[in-house]
Formats: sequence, structure tokens, C-alpha cells
Amino acid sequence: MSMVRYKAIIAYDGTLFHGFQRQPQGRTVQEELERTLSKMASQPIVVHGSGRTDAHVHALGQVIHFDYPKERPLEKMRFAMDTQTPEDIAVKQVEIVDELFHARYLVQEKVYEFHVQIGKPRSPFRRHYASYYPYPLDLAKIERALPDLLGTHDFSAFCASGSSVEDKVRTIYEATMVHDEALSELVFTFRGDGFLYKMIRILVGTLLKIGNGRLEETSLPKIIASKDRNCAGPTAHPEGLYLKEVKY
Amino acid sequence: MSMVRYKAIIAYDGTLFHGFQRQPQGRTVQEELERTLSKMASQPIVVHGSGRTDAHVHALGQVIHFDYPKERPLEKMRFAMDTQTPEDIAVKQVEIVDELFHARYLVQEKVYEFHVQIGKPRSPFRRHYASYYPYPLDLAKIERALPDLLGTHDFSAFCASGSSVEDKVRTIYEATMVHDEALSELVFTFRGDGFLYKMIRILVGTLLKIGNGRLEETSLPKIIASKDRNCAGPTAHPEGLYLKEVKY
Repeated sequence: MSMVRYKAIIAYDGTLFHGFQRQPQGRTVQEELERTLSKMASQPIVVHGSGRTDAHVHALGQVIHFDYPKERPLEKMRFAMDTQTPEDIAVKQVEIVDELFHARYLVQEKVYEFHVQIGKPRSPFRRHYASYYPYPLDLAKIERALPDLLGTHDFSAFCASGSSVEDKVRTIYEATMVHDEALSELVFTFRGDGFLYKMIRILVGTLLKIGNGRLEETSLPKIIASKDRNCAGPTAHPEGLYLKEVKY
Repeated sequence: MSMVRYKAIIAYDGTLFHGFQRQPQGRTVQEELERTLSKMASQPIVVHGSGRTDAHVHALGQVIHFDYPKERPLEKMRFAMDTQTPEDIAVKQVEIVDELFHARYLVQEKVYEFHVQIGKPRSPFRRHYASYYPYPLDLAKIERALPDLLGTHDFSAFCASGSSVEDKVRTIYEATMVHDEALSELVFTFRGDGFLYKMIRILVGTLLKIGNGRLEETSLPKIIASKDRNCAGPTAHPEGLYLKEVKY
């Protein structure tokens, strides 16, 4: 039987997931997608994501691909997937791609957002959707530090232990912060050719430490050069992180 | 011992609550507040709310009062209450009021918001925070119908059965709808001197039925005059409803 390769853009609320990638224990996004697609196809379907996301991390635009035994009208396929997956997964877009497409191998860029609620009290509505920082922050210091992240660097200092990746050189094309006053949140955006294990969360933890005055605003080049995880700041909580877009 | 009366403004995410009011079964906001305050005071404290909210209904500005055995600095009191209540309750403001203040008896106006997500797919991030309406809507029809709700009317047609209230005359001062395009949501605001049991949810269910063309846009005066619940539309889901403000 000839299979058709589909690419899909999905969103998920990571609150109740142990991350994207299938694992022996704990509910995962991949497992829910595979369960739905296998039922629809009446045969086992394997889902490939653009990469994993950690427990409680969200996605606005995760990309997956899978091979399916039938060519179906795209909106029908999207609707079936969207309504048959649990309500914390949404299927935003489906297209048919050629058999050379691969959701992980062909990634050119990824865009992440990180939300930090500031001010008091912590909003009960944002407790799963933004990390919380109640301490004083000089936003100008963070803004002056951000451009130091741009370009191609060995980001070993911003990689959590437990990563098996050998090459820790990555390129960051965009690193910005916007203050959303209505939500009382800082929204960080990072665009790059790829990110290391927990890299965005360590970057944000370091930037907040700079904003709080416990690290110099000029310290990022030194931290990068050290290649030492102990020189960077703490790892920000996962609930503020969103995989926003994957580009091919 | 002389008691001090406190007024507090609280917010809560209603998702995991069986409403505001204490009841034998199910977790409630009142019970959580009373548990925290009684522990802080080392004696039983009774909390009075401005009114009940149903299961899964949210509050941005519910008002409570309670008598407490000690006068404490207000920010210390707010911080203690906020951090000792569960994270789906936030204590926004605390003040000391005279003993004649009563959170329920002295209400002058209440303001509610109702959020309806439109468009596809349903956002996984809004599933607990907005009701969902995926059917066609002519927003102009809803806008033309809204002013018919203003003024003083017997709203029996918009009161769910099970209410023990005898007088069903209420005054609505404000009834508006805004289309939040970024969220793809309609935000209804209703301000009045009080609302009947499930009244806002039935109003929204009726307005959506008008927008969908299954009720005439001029039908509200007739529905009000009928005093018959069966003439109005369905009851919208509770997760879209927010108690926004209580005025005294």
C-alpha cells in the first residue's frame, strides 16, 4: 500500500503532559497523536516531531510529520485529527508533503517565546502559562544585555547537564523582550537555528538575574566564553516556555 | 476580644472549584478562604462573599468581608492571605472597613464579563477560560440586539429554574460586546444592579442564537415580556464567565 506523507502544525497546552516525546511513564503529546492517528488509519502510525519539548512546556506551532495510508481532503483530515485528539491538543494546519520532508532533520529555524509575569499578586489565570518573577527588575539592563546573545557561539554555558549533543555551537538570529502591560508580563522571543537542552530557560534565568542586578549587564560574553554552566543563571520554570514556530 | 472587619478583593480561577459557596461535597472558594483565615487567626473565621458563583465560573474581582481578631498592616495581611491560599486564588487588595459594611447586603452594582472563542480550531490554552462557538455569527445582529437588554425589566425568562428568588426585576445599565481579534474572542460585558441565577449565561446563549440567525434580532423585548425561560436561548457554558467587579 502506498503511503502519503502529511505535515501538520499543532498547538498544545503542556500543563498535563510529560513533554512531547513518547516515554514509558507519563502522558505525552506524541503518544496521544499516535493513538488518534492509528485509530483513524486502523493501523499503527508513527509521528515524528521537530524536536522534543520538556514537561509542562507549551507549543503554539510544533511541526510533525507522519505517513498515512490514504490521501484525504486536508480540512477533513485536520478536523478529524483536531476533534479526535484530547482537548489540550489542537491541530491548526495539515498539508501533504513529498516523501523527502522530515520534521526534525530539515529544520532551518525555531522560534520560542518565554512569558514571565511580574507584579503582584501572581494571576491565578496565568499560573500554568507564565513563570513568575516578583523581585525588582531593571528592564533597561535586560534590553542592553540581549544583543550579546546574537550570532554564532558555543553555548555550552547555557546547556543543562544530561544532554548527549556534542556540538554546542548555535546561531541566534533574534533575541527580544516586550513588556505586555495589560498582562503584566515580559515576553521574550528567541529565534535561532536550534537550541540546546533547556537553553532558553537558562537564558531567561540569566537575563532575569541581570535585570535584578545580581549579574552585570555586560556579563553575557564572559559567561558564553566560560562554557561553564555554573557561570550562567538558574533555569527558569517550564510553564513560561512556548515553541512558537518551526521553519524549513 | 474586639474584632476588626476586613474587606478584600479576590480573583480566582474557577476551573477546579465547585463554585464560591461552601457545600458538603466539592472544593469551594469560601472553604479555602475560611481554612486559611482560621489558621492565620487560630480561631474559626467566617467569610461572606458578594454572592455565589457557579462551578467553573471565574472571578477577577469578587469581594468578601470577614471579622478578624487583630488589626494588621494591610500589605502584610494581603500577602499572608495571598500566599497561604492555594495558587488558584489571588488576594488583590485588603482594607479595613467599619462594622456596618457587608459584602452581600450593600452591593450596588455587579459587572460580569463573558468570553466566547470563535474561529477554528479551539485554542487548547482557552479551553477553561472561554466558551467555544464554532458556528457562523453575524456580529452586527448581536450589536443591534444588545441595547434591548438595557433598563429595568422582569427577567424571569432569563432565570434558570431552581432559583428561590421571588422578585425577578433587575436593572441592566450596560450590555456591550467587543471582538478581541488577537484572541479570536467575543468579550461581553454586563453591568447591572444584580443578576438572577444563570442569567448572564442565558443572556449570552440567547445573543449567540440571534447572531447565528436562529432567533430574530428584534426578539429580546418579546422574550423578556414572555417571562418564559423556554423562549430564551440555551445556557452558555460556565468557563466563559467572569465576575469582574462589585461596586458598593
